[in-house]
Formats: sequence, structure tokens, C-alpha cells
Amino acid sequence: PGREEGSTAAEDNMVGVINLEGVITGGSGDAFLSSGSDHIVHQLHEASQDPSIKALVIRINSPGGSAAASQEIYQEVLKVKEAGKKVVVSMGDVAASGGYWVASAADKIVANPATITGSIGVIMEFQNVEGLFEKLGLKVNVIKSAEHKDIGSPTRPMTEEERAIFQGMVDDIYNQFIDVVAKGRKMDREKVKELADGRIFTGRQAKELGLVDELGNFYDALKIAAELAGIEGEPEIKEYGRKTPLEILMTGAPGL
Amino acid sequence: PGREEGSTAAEDNMVGVINLEGVITGGSGDAFLSSGSDHIVHQLHEASQDPSIKALVIRINSPGGSAAASQEIYQEVLKVKEAGKKVVVSMGDVAASGGYWVASAADKIVANPATITGSIGVIMEFQNVEGLFEKLGLKVNVIKSAEHKDIGSPTRPMTEEERAIFQGMVDDIYNQFIDVVAKGRKMDREKVKELADGRIFTGRQAKELGLVDELGNFYDALKIAAELAGIEGEPEIKEYGRKTPLEILMTGAPGL
Amino acid sequence: PGREEGSTAAEDNMVGVINLEGVITGGSGDAFLSSGSDHIVHQLHEASQDPSIKALVIRINSPGGSAAASQEIYQEVLKVKEAGKKVVVSMGDVAASGGYWVASAADKIVANPATITGSIGVIMEFQNVEGLFEKLGLKVNVIKSAEHKDIGSPTRPMTEEERAIFQGMVDDIYNQFIDVVAKGRKMDREKVKELADGRIFTGRQAKELGLVDELGNFYDALKIAAELAGIEGEPEIKEYGRKTPLEILMTGAPGL
Amino acid sequence: PGREEGSTAAEDNMVGVINLEGVITGGSGDAFLSSGSDHIVHQLHEASQDPSIKALVIRINSPGGSAAASQEIYQEVLKVKEAGKKVVVSMGDVAASGGYWVASAADKIVANPATITGSIGVIMEFQNVEGLFEKLGLKVNVIKSAEHKDIGSPTRPMTEEERAIFQGMVDDIYNQFIDVVAKGRKMDREKVKELADGRIFTGRQAKELGLVDELGNFYDALKIAAELAGIEGEPEIKEYGRKTPLEILMTGAPGL
Amino acid sequence: PGREEGSTAAEDNMVGVINLEGVITGGSGDAFLSSGSDHIVHQLHEASQDPSIKALVIRINSPGGSAAASQEIYQEVLKVKEAGKKVVVSMGDVAASGGYWVASAADKIVANPATITGSIGVIMEFQNVEGLFEKLGLKVNVIKSAEHKDIGSPTRPMTEEERAIFQGMVDDIYNQFIDVVAKGRKMDREKVKELADGRIFTGRQAKELGLVDELGNFYDALKIAAELAGIEGEPEIKEYGRKTPLEILMTGAPGL
Amino acid sequence: PGREEGSTAAEDNMVGVINLEGVITGGSGDAFLSSGSDHIVHQLHEASQDPSIKALVIRINSPGGSAAASQEIYQEVLKVKEAGKKVVVSMGDVAASGGYWVASAADKIVANPATITGSIGVIMEFQNVEGLFEKLGLKVNVIKSAEHKDIGSPTRPMTEEERAIFQGMVDDIYNQFIDVVAKGRKMDREKVKELADGRIFTGRQAKELGLVDELGNFYDALKIAAELAGIEGEPEIKEYGRKTPLEILMTGAPGL
Amino acid sequence: PGREEGSTAAEDNMVGVINLEGVITGGSGDAFLSSGSDHIVHQLHEASQDPSIKALVIRINSPGGSAAASQEIYQEVLKVKEAGKKVVVSMGDVAASGGYWVASAADKIVANPATITGSIGVIMEFQNVEGLFEKLGLKVNVIKSAEHKDIGSPTRPMTEEERAIFQGMVDDIYNQFIDVVAKGRKMDREKVKELADGRIFTGRQAKELGLVDELGNFYDALKIAAELAGIEGEPEIKEYGRKTPLEILMTGAPGL
Amino acid sequence: PGREEGSTAAEDNMVGVINLEGVITGGSGDAFLSSGSDHIVHQLHEASQDPSIKALVIRINSPGGSAAASQEIYQEVLKVKEAGKKVVVSMGDVAASGGYWVASAADKIVANPATITGSIGVIMEFQNVEGLFEKLGLKVNVIKSAEHKDIGSPTRPMTEEERAIFQGMVDDIYNQFIDVVAKGRKMDREKVKELADGRIFTGRQAKELGLVDELGNFYDALKIAAELAGIEGEPEIKEYGRKTPLEILMTGAPGL
Repeated sequence: PGREEGSTAAEDNMVGVINLEGVITGGSGDAFLSSGSDHIVHQLHEASQDPSIKALVIRINSPGGSAAASQEIYQEVLKVKEAGKKVVVSMGDVAASGGYWVASAADKIVANPATITGSIGVIMEFQNVEGLFEKLGLKVNVIKSAEHKDIGSPTRPMTEEERAIFQGMVDDIYNQFIDVVAKGRKMDREKVKELADGRIFTGRQAKELGLVDELGNFYDALKIAAELAGIEGEPEIKEYGRKTPLEILMTGAPGL
Repeated sequence: PGREEGSTAAEDNMVGVINLEGVITGGSGDAFLSSGSDHIVHQLHEASQDPSIKALVIRINSPGGSAAASQEIYQEVLKVKEAGKKVVVSMGDVAASGGYWVASAADKIVANPATITGSIGVIMEFQNVEGLFEKLGLKVNVIKSAEHKDIGSPTRPMTEEERAIFQGMVDDIYNQFIDVVAKGRKMDREKVKELADGRIFTGRQAKELGLVDELGNFYDALKIAAELAGIEGEPEIKEYGRKTPLEILMTGAPGL
Repeated sequence: PGREEGSTAAEDNMVGVINLEGVITGGSGDAFLSSGSDHIVHQLHEASQDPSIKALVIRINSPGGSAAASQEIYQEVLKVKEAGKKVVVSMGDVAASGGYWVASAADKIVANPATITGSIGVIMEFQNVEGLFEKLGLKVNVIKSAEHKDIGSPTRPMTEEERAIFQGMVDDIYNQFIDVVAKGRKMDREKVKELADGRIFTGRQAKELGLVDELGNFYDALKIAAELAGIEGEPEIKEYGRKTPLEILMTGAPGL
Repeated sequence: PGREEGSTAAEDNMVGVINLEGVITGGSGDAFLSSGSDHIVHQLHEASQDPSIKALVIRINSPGGSAAASQEIYQEVLKVKEAGKKVVVSMGDVAASGGYWVASAADKIVANPATITGSIGVIMEFQNVEGLFEKLGLKVNVIKSAEHKDIGSPTRPMTEEERAIFQGMVDDIYNQFIDVVAKGRKMDREKVKELADGRIFTGRQAKELGLVDELGNFYDALKIAAELAGIEGEPEIKEYGRKTPLEILMTGAPGL
Repeated sequence: PGREEGSTAAEDNMVGVINLEGVITGGSGDAFLSSGSDHIVHQLHEASQDPSIKALVIRINSPGGSAAASQEIYQEVLKVKEAGKKVVVSMGDVAASGGYWVASAADKIVANPATITGSIGVIMEFQNVEGLFEKLGLKVNVIKSAEHKDIGSPTRPMTEEERAIFQGMVDDIYNQFIDVVAKGRKMDREKVKELADGRIFTGRQAKELGLVDELGNFYDALKIAAELAGIEGEPEIKEYGRKTPLEILMTGAPGL
Repeated sequence: PGREEGSTAAEDNMVGVINLEGVITGGSGDAFLSSGSDHIVHQLHEASQDPSIKALVIRINSPGGSAAASQEIYQEVLKVKEAGKKVVVSMGDVAASGGYWVASAADKIVANPATITGSIGVIMEFQNVEGLFEKLGLKVNVIKSAEHKDIGSPTRPMTEEERAIFQGMVDDIYNQFIDVVAKGRKMDREKVKELADGRIFTGRQAKELGLVDELGNFYDALKIAAELAGIEGEPEIKEYGRKTPLEILMTGAPGL
Repeated sequence: PGREEGSTAAEDNMVGVINLEGVITGGSGDAFLSSGSDHIVHQLHEASQDPSIKALVIRINSPGGSAAASQEIYQEVLKVKEAGKKVVVSMGDVAASGGYWVASAADKIVANPATITGSIGVIMEFQNVEGLFEKLGLKVNVIKSAEHKDIGSPTRPMTEEERAIFQGMVDDIYNQFIDVVAKGRKMDREKVKELADGRIFTGRQAKELGLVDELGNFYDALKIAAELAGIEGEPEIKEYGRKTPLEILMTGAPGL
Repeated sequence: PGREEGSTAAEDNMVGVINLEGVITGGSGDAFLSSGSDHIVHQLHEASQDPSIKALVIRINSPGGSAAASQEIYQEVLKVKEAGKKVVVSMGDVAASGGYWVASAADKIVANPATITGSIGVIMEFQNVEGLFEKLGLKVNVIKSAEHKDIGSPTRPMTEEERAIFQGMVDDIYNQFIDVVAKGRKMDREKVKELADGRIFTGRQAKELGLVDELGNFYDALKIAAELAGIEGEPEIKEYGRKTPLEILMTGAPGL
């Protein structure tokens, strides 16, 4: 297929492509290394308003990351669908946790049989360095306005109350995740929960469990997107948000 | 929406956007990595005097930082409102502590359901390296003009009197924080204090508690700002303070 | 032979060449060091649609890597064959594991007698750092939504249930691998399994076992490809995806 | 307000701005990282002789540093006042110790309520590495012309006589500091001494104690300076000594 | 002699020169540091088809490396001879193991009397880090599809069966090496085996043993090549594959 | 005042300025970091022969350094005075030891009240690493032509005879220092010796003791210099030896 | 004398100069740091065929290095003499071992009286890291084709048979060295052996022993070369192989 | 005085200046950091043949270094004198050991009173790492042609015979040094030996002992040189061998 970078020409057979790769982080992120969700959200917003595309393929190679950032992206994918475009996700190597959150918004999910997916759930990890500080001879004096201002502090044990606060947050976000998957995959909420104990699946296993629709690679996903959108013949590809290392150095990461 | 960088053209439908990202520090900060409050204050000052915008969206991705720096920014947000513009905060991944201080000045706060927010409170931490110095065979001779000139010294224990001095400062700033939240969120001071024990919330929890007004992503916030300002149709976006890495190298960080 | 870089001129005697070198990873990879499968897949897609070549030599110097990435490449090699072109793999130093997965799609596999090949199988490795953390005085507090969200965690022992989950995935992908080899090499599935216990072979051993068709170097493979395609005389070579270090810096890695 | 960099045009409504940031050091300092007092002194000298400004705002974000360097700056601030211009200090994040020394010369001090200030006093610290050297197996032979040539040596204990010499210097400079604050803040010398035991204050505490005149941010300070100078309408800003990183590389730090 | 870089002018008295230096590795190698066999093979292919040269000197300064890579080069040297050109190897400092494998294809081998050569044989080395991991407190969980998928693993002992698999490969490649030397040096296979116990020789010892034909330096080898090819007078030299560091940076390593 | 860099225009009211900053070292020094005495001596020589200046201010921010280098500079300052120009030293942060040696040649010394000065004396320090070498298992074999060729060796104890040799040198240079101060400050030699036990003073203490003439900052010193030279009105400044980092890179450090 | 770089003008009074500096290594060496013998050999070949020089001075500042590389250079020096030119070696700081091997080919050897020379002999050193590996918990599994393939291995003791193999090589090369010195210095072989026990000499000692002909510096050597060649008046100098760092970066090290 | 860089104009009143700084090493040295004797020797050779200078000042800031390199320089200084030019040495910070060797060739030696000089003698130091290797678990196998080939080895004790060999070399070079000083300073050989036990002196002590002629700085030395040469008025200065860092990068260090 031909290929056109970010032009706004109104061609009728175009399929947009957006690449979500690496750990999902919030903000504008590290311009060189990670997918700051702002950029992806901006690309999706562009795509939703671009009359030249009929369908969008989101290529995902991500183990997940920030829940809120995944959520921001997910919300904007829904708007692409609301704008009347078909959305197909192509899972690469791995599309798990936050990567699956995003995928669950698609009309169709296409994975390789050996793709790593799943890991539906929420986790918080806190390191405790008390033992290390004792070995090094370091102590910390903390002056705080109220009890929980140093919640999650690495230099003292976590209290049961704090553990409950964190667990409450984890459970709240977990329920948001379950809702999204149930709605996107049109599954019973209880059935989602069975699959959503954090475990991972191969693409083939995920297809059997209903978390994936088709097996195939990126070009298979492209073909499926074109078919869903009723495009005849070879679809034209339109990539969003691709910048060379030099362009990033000179123009900064793509705007909010 | 269209997008225009820092022009002063007087268009009627514009919404300004200012990005507050990373740890909030005072001064001009590290030009590449952190949000020196001087730059943000300067952008807000520009926005308050810019006749071309009717509303402002402040995008916050920050765990907080310096209290005084947050306060400087907060003060200038108030002046944007005094200048008759609507202000909406869009919380990204995290908008906690000093990030929330700034947010509390807005007409509306929009968060993702999984945003990390809260952490209302003040904290000071002091490291004590006496044990390490003993292991290394290091000692320090201090000659001082009066008792507290080495307050917070890492090479001796903190006295009770010093702890009281620090606690007094923490409490004073904490009260400033509580006042700001109570006024901004139109909440009873006592109710704020209940929420302000330093704990963190998800965006959805925060909405239930009244610390957030709406759930949604950046483009939802943009839409809300436009509505508040009575803008019809798609709003034009005007970004302040965006510089590429090369521009920063060549022109320095944006001025005071 | 002459040599032409990526031109689309329709010459009748051309043989395409694609180079698969280093560890096979998913996504766009590290532009400088590894073979992100996206780039290889893109080159194969180009080749499948390029009327100017009649045959393709895939030069493999790879110990394998990601199963899904190998699979994506494998799928696209099949489409080159479906497009009516002959495909010959030339194994260099090593073409094992995922490198063999890709090779099994070819019409002919040519290896050096001393090439290292085989290693048919799937493996997952997890490091456990509990002992190290204990020595360093580090502990980790984990708050999770469900039991397996921290599956594979390096800071606690792996449970039997988790081991079973992983073994299930390994077995599933292993069966995909066996199917591919059996189909590609036209071997009985049971016979493949005998060879596929993960062991490695020399090229000469592999030829005796039916995993390789011919012994020879790159130019021998080129000659075989030309013969298979009925090209008379010296074939013209057309390389895909070659970029100089400077080109990569300035234009980024080749697109999806 | 408008903004003009270092021009000498004689406009009537201008307010100068000088930025004192980071640790205060003597000499020309590290061109990139610290405020070598020579540059600040030079900017103040320029301001004192510049007929185009009626007032000067000194923006301070500094924890202090060298006493002599602070004194050099303080002296030159006095000359700006002698030249008939109003001087207002705007305290940012922190303006303590030497930072306060400089501030005490102003007509008005404006601080944020949460600014860290105070730390009035003098301190000398000497590290003793005898224990470390013993562990490492290092010794030092010293040949000196007289007893105190190696005063403050890190490789032997400090004698009582030497401690008295250092204490005498600390006390002498401390008295210089007290005099300056008493004169600048028009406070009784004894009252200054009560506050000057080295402790730190919030901006709000400092205002109650008379060390600060007004609470507000940079633009509040600018407004106060304009009012003191009788400027009507929006004041024009004139910045001194701002250089971009590239300018510093190419022209060196601003001259003496 | 004159010297011409890579031109294709058809002069009658030219001797080609190819430089094989450093460890022999497969693939395109590290563009700056090692002899990726692809480049050498490509140069040899060029030479074999270049009507302007009558003879080729291969200058070898290499301790060997990959067996398959050496074999690829060896095979292409044979094709140069098949194309009717005389091939002379000039051994520099060291031409051992894989370096000798390549040399054995030549019409004549010229070495310095003190050249290090020999080391005919094959070796595989595997590091076992179990003890180190135990000291560091590290463990590894391995999930594998079949018994030998982690053959050669550094974190467990090697089994006897695995040792037999490796020994079988080593013996197979060793026999390939012996065959090549016997054929190239026209020696009895048994006699080769006596010399091929891995030991090394000086150039002079190797000549006595029949592994080298003449003693002399590079220009002596050049002269011998010219004589073998019947070139009269001073031969013109034509170098293949020489690139400056800047050329490599800008054009990449020479193509396959 | 105006400012002119190194021009030779003969203006009548000029005051030269030379900057002595950092540790005083001999030779051309490290072009970027230290005051190689050669450069300062060269600037002073220029100043002594420059008819356009009537007075010279030497700005000193130095803790001292090499005795011989300080002496070279001192000698050249005397020649400036012999050439009929007035010389004023302005002490910045610190002007001690070798920094004071240089200052003692001036007509007037101006210091800040908190300047660190004094440290009149001479010191040699030798590190002994025998213990470290024993720990590391290192020994040294020394072959020497005569007993003292390895005087000051870090790998053996210092003998009494060697200590006497070093003490003799220290005393000799100390007497040179005393002579210089006595002559420059017009003090009794015995009185100098009382102050010259190596101890340090504040600027205010030094003034009381006669080691400093006036208290004030750089611009005060400039004014004093102009008055001494009988310059009326604002003096013009002429700086010697200032180079930007780029100029130093491209032209090297200023010549001998 | 005048000086001309690498021109080929046929002037009658020219003396060539070649610089051999640093450790002598084979191959093209590290372009920046060491004397790859290929470059020196190439320069000598140029000199031997250059009709414009009548004599050659080889300037040696080298402690030796590779025996074969020294031999390659030595051989080419002989050809310069065969071409009818006089060759004089000028020893600098050190010209020992391989440096002396080269020197022994000259018509005259000129050394400074304090030059370090000699070290005639051959040495091989092998490090054994068994003890270190045991401390680190590392083991190595070796699979080899025959007994001596891992001769010189650092991870096992050296056998007596292997020691004999190495000693045989050392003795063989030693005899080559003795022969060369005996022939070059026209000394009895037995007398050479007495001097060739590896010991080093000063230039003056070496002259007494007949290993050096004259004492003097580089310009003395130049004069001697001119006299030997019958050049009258001041000789013109022609340097070979000199490249600036930038030229090396852009053109690579000088060709073979 | 005026100043001209390396021109060859024949002016009558010129005094040449050559700068010898840092450790004296043989060869072309490290282009940036040390005085490779080749460059200094070349500059002296230029000066000896330059009709435009009547005298030469050698500025020495060096603790010495290689004996042979010092000797090469010394020899060439003599030739400058033989060419009828006056030579004056100006000692800077330190001019000891090899630095004094060079100085002893001058017509006059001028030192600062506090210059460090002397250290007349010769020393060799050898490190023995046996203990360290034992701690690390390292051993070394040495195969050598004769007993002393590994003389000075850091991995075994030094034998008495080897110590005698080294002492013989040290004594030989020491006698060369004594001869040079005796001749240059016109002192009795025995008197030199008394001073030449390796000890160091101040410039003033050295003058009393006859090792220095005059006390003074660089410009004093320049004046003395001009007087010796009978130059009237201010002498013109002509510097040899000065290159900027950029010139060195682009043209390499000055030639032999």
C-alpha cells in the first residue's frame, strides 16, 4: 500500500495507524523512550476528526503502565469510534495490563498466537529500605502535618491502615478496569473477573477465552480494518505521530 | 481544533492551555527537567492579560513539590480568574500535594477516574548520616554564631526544640493549604481537614469526596472550559510556554 | 551482480535480499542494535508486492528471541510465497530457535556446514532476587487486585499454580512451533518433536536430519534462489531495509 | 507588561529586574550553575546608573552562601537606593542566610506565605578525616612555617586555640550581619539578635516578626515597586544579566 | 606500486588485496571493530568477478573466531580460484584457528618466521555462574518446553548428555576443518590430525611442517602472487573494502 | 563606567582591571580552571607598559597556591608601580596566603568586612601510603643514584634529615614572605611575624591589624584607585586577559 | 632544513624520516595510539622506491611488541638498503626488544647516552585466573576437539607439555632474533647471546658493547645519514606517514 | 614588547622564547598534555638556524622526566649556543631533575627565590604486585628466552643480580648528569656531587650554591637575555611552537 505521513488530503480509502509502544506513562513523557499518553491521546483526537480515514489500526507493543494514562487513551479511542470510524487493535509482542485496557475499546482485537496478553488487574509496589539504611548508618527525621502525609514511605513499615487505603484504591481502579473489559468485550462481569486475576495468556489462549477476536499479524489487522470499513482494494495507510530522532530533538515531542 | 503557538491575535473562541508537569520547584529551575515555578507564573501572567482567550485549561501531571512555588502559581491562577477568564484544571496521571494546591484555584477540576490525587498536607524530611560518618571515620567540627544556625544538620541528632521549630513551620503552611482548599472547593474547613491527613485518592474517590468536579480526559476538560466560557463550536487552542529542546538550549528557559 | 537499493524499477531478473540479524524483538526495537520485527515485517510486505523480484533470499544471523515477533515475520514470509515468489533462507553463523521458526517458512534452507541451528523450543526465565534483597536490607510491599497480578515477581517464590500457568503458555507456543516446522519441512509431527527438545545442531547435522536442504554460503543461496525462480544468467540483487547509521539518526528506523 | 532586555532607552515607566538564584559564591563563579557575586554586583552597578528605571525588583531564590559575597551585593544594593531608585525584594522559594543579608537592604521585602527565610547567622564547618585515613592506611607529613598554617586541617584534631580563632571570626561576621539587619529593618539590635539564632521561618511567620513587609508573589512585588516609584499604569520591565546557555558558552559569564 | 581504490578499470597487471583482521564474526558485525564475515565474503565475490585482477593477496591478522563465518569466507576464496585467479595468503602477526581455515584455501601461504599460526581445532566454552549467583543471593526459575531448551545454561551444571551433544558438534566441525586443511595443503588426513591437536606454531615451525609455503612479509607475498599470475614488472594494487571511519559512519558497513 | 576590552587607545581617565581568581599555579596552567601565573604576569606586563591607564585594580579571589608563582606575580606588580601607575587590590571572597603575597605589593588594599584573608606562611604536605599499599599487597623497589633522590616518597617514612631539608626550604620561603609583607605594609618585621603564624582573619580584623587599608567592595576599590590617580569624574574601565570559553578553545590560553 | 610532506618531487639532497613510536603491533592497529606494523611497512616500501631520497632516518621510540610485526618491519628496512639508500636509526627515549630488532637492520645506530635499549629476547606471559574465579564462584566448561585447543587457557593450570610447546616457540623466535642481531651488528653469534639474556642497557653501555654505533640526538643522526649518503650542505627532510588527528578520522589510518 | 609568532622575518632585536612545561617525555608525546621532547628539540633546532634572533629564553616549568629526553633537549640547546646565540633559562614554579639537566646548558639561569629546583640524580621505580595478585587469586605463567627477559617484572621479587643491573644503569646516567652540570655550571665535579644527592632547593638556596645565577621572574630573564646579546631598547619576542588546542586537533602536534 502507499503511505502518507500526516497529510490531510481527503482520500476515501485510507486507514490510519497509531503506534503504542513501551511502558505507558502520563504526561508528555520522555521524548525518546516512552509513550507519554498525551501524545497518543493527541494523535487519537486528530484521527477522530480526520475525514480522510475510515478506519484506524492501533498497533500495541506494551506491557501496560499507568492506569490513568491508559484510561485517557481508552477514552479517546471511544471517541474515534463515536466519530464513525472502525477501530482494530493489532497486538505485537505483548499487549498486557494497561495495554489490554486500551485494546478493549476496539471493534476487533487481532493478536499473534504467541502474543503475551492478559495481566488484567492493578498493582502497587512500595520498597522498604529500612534494612539498607540501618546497614549504611542512615536515619531520617520526618516532620509532617498529619498522619498519612508520608504514606508509602520507604523508611518505615507500612501500617495496616495505610495498607487498607492503598487496597481501596487498587480495588477501585480494578473495578473500573473490569467494567471497561466487560463493556468492550461484551462479556459478563463475573466472567471477566475469572480471567482478571492478573494472569497472562498467549494470544491463542486469549482467543479461546474471548479476549481476542482474531489471530494474525499487523497486515492481517490492516486487512480486517479495511474490510470492516468497507474499503475495497488495497487500503492507503496514514501514520500519525511518527517523528525521527532528529525531529524530536528539534521540535520536541508532539504537542498535547 | 486548530492550534496556534503564542500568537497574540485577538480571536474570540480561543482556549489557553498551560502545562504543569513534574516536580514543582522554585526559581527558573532546571531548564530541561522540572517546572521552575517562575516560568509557569510568567505564562499565567501572560494568559491573564491576553484578550484573545476566554478560558484556560491547566493540565497538571505533578506529584507536588515546593509549597512556596505552588503558592506563587496558585496566586497567579486567581488573577487569571479575576481577569474574567474561566479556568479548568485537567488532572493527568497524578495531581497531588502541591499539584492539588494549584488545582484548588480552578473553576472546575476534571480528573480521570484512576488519577492519583490528594496528599493534602506538608512534610519536611531530614537525613541523619551520623552512623554512616562513624563507619567511614569522618567527623565534623562546627563553629556557629548561635544555637540553631546548623538546624537540620545531618551530622547530629535533632533536638526537641528544633523539632518544634520545624513542626511550627509545617503547621503554619498546612493551615495555608487548608484555607486555600476550603475556599477553592467551597468546603467547610473542618471537612477539608478530614480529607487532608495526607492520604491519596483515586480520581473517582476524590469526586465522591468533593475534591474533583468531573471525570474525563484532557479533551473533556477542554470541552468543559469552552462551555463555561460560552464558546460555541470547536474551540481554538493556544498553548503557552512550549519550547523545543533546541529552543531551550539557544534561548534559555522562558523568562521570569 | 549489480545491486540496486530499494528502487521499484521493474526488472525481470531481480532477487530480493532481506537481512535478519541479532536478537528478534517485537515493535520498532532499538533503531541501532536489534531487529525490531516491525521493520522486517514491513520489508517482507514490500517484497511480496514488488513485481520486480522473482525470488527472495532471507539472510539469517540470529539466535532467536521473541516468539510472537518470530511468528509475525513467519506469517509475512508465507505471504511472499503466496505472491508467487520463491523464498530461500541463507543461514549465517547461527539461525536457531526463533531464527529457525522464520526459516521454516522458506522453499529452501541453505546453511553452512558449521552453522549453529536448531534450539527448537520455548523457554521462560524468571530471576528471583529474594536472597539479594535480604543481603541489601530491602523489602517490597505489594498491594494487588488479585492473586496473580504479580505473577513472575522477582521478590517472592513462584507458586506451583503460577508455574503451571507459565508451563501452559510455554507448551501452547511450543505446539505452534512444532506445527510450523512440521508443515514447513513437510515432516511428521512426531519426528519434529524428537528433534525439538531444544538441542542445537551443526548445519551438516541439521541437513542429515532434514532441517536444512543444502549446504553453502550466501552466494550459493542466491544462486539456488535464482534457479528456483527460473532466472537465467547472473541475477540482479535488490536489498530491502538497509539504512546507514546517519540515515537512521535522521529518518528514524524504517516505518511499520 | 512589555519586556526589554538590557536596552538603555530612557523610558520613564521602567522597573528593573535582577535575579539572584542559587548558592551565593564569590568571584565570577561557575558560569552555568551558581551566582558568582561579581555578576550580580555588576548588574546592580548598571542599574544604579541607568536613568531609564525608577525602581528595581530583586528576585531572590537563594539559601545564602559566602558572607563576603553577600556583603558585596548588599553594598551595591545600597548604592542603587542612593541613586534615588526604589528597591523591592521578591522572595521566591527560599531566601535565607546570605539571601536575607541582601534582602535587608531593600525598601520593601515581599515574600510568599510559605517562603523559607531567616537562618540569620554565620557558620563554619570543617571535616575531620583522621578516622578514614586510618582505615585506608594513609598518613600525612606536614612541614609548616608556624603553628596555624594548617589551621582547619582535616587530618588532625582542631585545637582549642584554633577553635577560638574561628569563633572570633564567626562572631565578627555575625555582628556585621546583625548590624545590617537592624539598620535595614529599622529594628532594635537586641530584637534582631533574638530572631537571629539561626532558625528559619515561613514567610508568614517572618512578616509577623517584622522581617518581611508584604505577602505576595513576584507580580505583586512588581506592582509594589511601581507604586513606590510613583509609576502609573502597567510598568515596563527591564531585565539585567539574562544570558542564554549558548550566549554564556560563547561570550563567557557577564563581566566584573 | 600504484594503488587504486575499488575502480573497475580493466588493467592487466593488477593484484587485488583483501584485509582480514581481528576476530572473525558472522553477520555484518560491528562496523568499527570486527571483521563481519558478510563484508569479507562480499569483497571476495567482487574480486572473483573482477576482470581487472589476475591474482589476489589475502592479508590475515586474525586469531580466528566463528567456524561458520570462517567457512563462508573459505568457500568464497575457492570461487576466486575457480574464476582463474591466483590466491596468496600473507600472514601477519597471527593467523590461527579460523584464520588458518581461510588460509588453507590459498595457492600459497606466506608467513613471517615469527607469525603465530596453527591452533587447528574447535572449542566451545560455557561459563557456570551458580557459585556467583549463590553469593549474590540470586536464583533463576526456568520454564521450558523440553529438556534441552536451556542447554548451555550458566545457572545449572551441564549434564553428561548435553556434554555429549556439544562434543558431537565440536567433532563434526573439527572433521570439516581437517578435511579442508588436508585438501588445501594436499596432506594426508592422518598427518593433518597430528598437527591439529590445537597447538600453535611459529611461522618457521609451520613451514617445516608443511602448513606454510614461504617465509616473507606482505610485499614478499605480493611479489609471489604477481609471479604466480605471470605479471611482469611491478604489479598495480587494487584494495577492496577499505572505508574510512567517516565513510563507515555515513554509509554504514559495506553491504552483504 | 564605560568598558573597553584590551584596546590600546590612549584615553586619559582609564583604570585597568586584572582578575586573579582560583588557586595560583605556575606555568600556563589549566586554560579553563586555574590562574596559571604566566597569564597574570603577562597581563601585568601589558598594564605596566600601557600609557592609557593611570591606575590598576587587581581583583583577588584566591586562597593562594604556589609560592614561586605568587612571587612572579608580586614582582610584576611592583613594576606596574615603578611605571608610575597606582595599584589597588580589591579582595573578594577570599584573598589569603599567596593571594595576600600578591596583595602586599599594592598601594592600597580594599577588602569586604567579611573577606577571608591572612594565612601568611608556607606549608608542604606529603602523603604516606605505606599502610594502604600493605593493605593492597603492593610493594615498590627503588633504585636511586643517591640518598635523597626519592625525598618525599609516599612509600617510606620521612627521615629526620629529610624533614630538616624541607623545613629549611619552608623557613627560607617564609622569610621571603615576611620581608615582602613588612615592606609592602610598611610594618615592623617582628610585628608581621606575630600576625604571620598562618591564622586567618576577617577583612575587618585585618584592617584593625594593618593588613588591609579600607573596607568596601569592588566598585569602592575602583573609586579609590581613580582618586589616587587623580582621575576626575567616572573612570573608564579597561579589562586585561578576559577570554570567553570559546576563545580559549580556539586561541588557547593567553600567551606568556 | 626545509621539510616536505610526502611529495614525490625528485630532489637530490633529501633524507627520508619515518617515525616508529609506541608498542609495535601487527595489522593496521589502533589508528590513534599504536604503530600497526602495516603502516610502517608501507612507509618503508614507499621509501625504498622513492628516487628523491638518498638516505633514511628511522626514529625509534618503542619498547618493542610483537615479534612478527617487528620482523615484517625489519625485512622491509633491508629492502630500503637493497635499493641503495643509507639507513640510520635514531633511538629516542627507549628502543628495546622489538625496537632493537628493527634497529639492527640499519647501517648505523645512533642513541642518546641515556637511551634505554637492549632487552634482546622473547617472552610469553599467560595469566591464570583460577583463584579469582573460585573467589567469584565462576566455573568454565570446555568442550574441545583435541587436547591442546585450549592451550594457554587462563582457567586451568598449564601442563608441562604445553610449557614445552611454548618454550619451543620462544626459543625458535629467539634464535631468529639472535641471527638478525649477529648479522646486522656483524657480531659473533655467541657474543650476541651473552648480551641477549634480556637485560637492558643505557645507550652509553650499549655503545661500549657494540650494540650502538654513535651517541647523539635526532639531528646528529640526520647529519650522519646525510654524510653516509654523500649529501653536501644541509639535507632536505621528507617525512612519511605523518597524519593529523583530523586526517586520520577522515581518511583512516594509512593503507597497507 | 611586540610579539610575533613563528615568522621568519629577519629583525635584528629579537629574542626567541621556548616553553618547556610539564613532565618531560620522549617521542611526540601526548599532543595535549606533556612535553614530548621531539617538539622541543625541533623548536630548538629552528631557533639555532633562525637568523632573526640574537638570544633565546627557555621558560622551564617542569619536575623533570625521562633522562634521555632531557639529554636530547640539552644537546640541542648546546647547538643554539654554538650558533652564536645567548641562552637564558627562566625557571618558573619548578625546574628540577631533568628540568635542571636542560637548564645547565644555559649561559645564565634565572630563578624565582621560591622556585623549587635541584633533585639532581637518577631514579628507577618498580612496583611489585605479588601480594595484590595473591589477594585477587591471579597467577602468571612466564615463558622466556633467557633469565633477564622479564627483568623488572611486577609479579616476582627482584633478584640481587637484577638490582645490580639497574643500579649500574642508574649510576651510568647519574655520571652523565654530573658531567653536564659540572661543565655547564663550571663547577668542580666533586662539588656537584655534594649537591647532587637528589635533594631539592629553593631558588634562593640554589643561587647561594651556584646552581642559579640570578633571581627574578620571566621578564627579568628576558631583560638579561637582551643585555647579554647586546640588544638595545625593548627586545621583540618571537615564540616557537605555540599552538592552540584547535590547531593541535587539526594539524597534530608539531613535527619532529
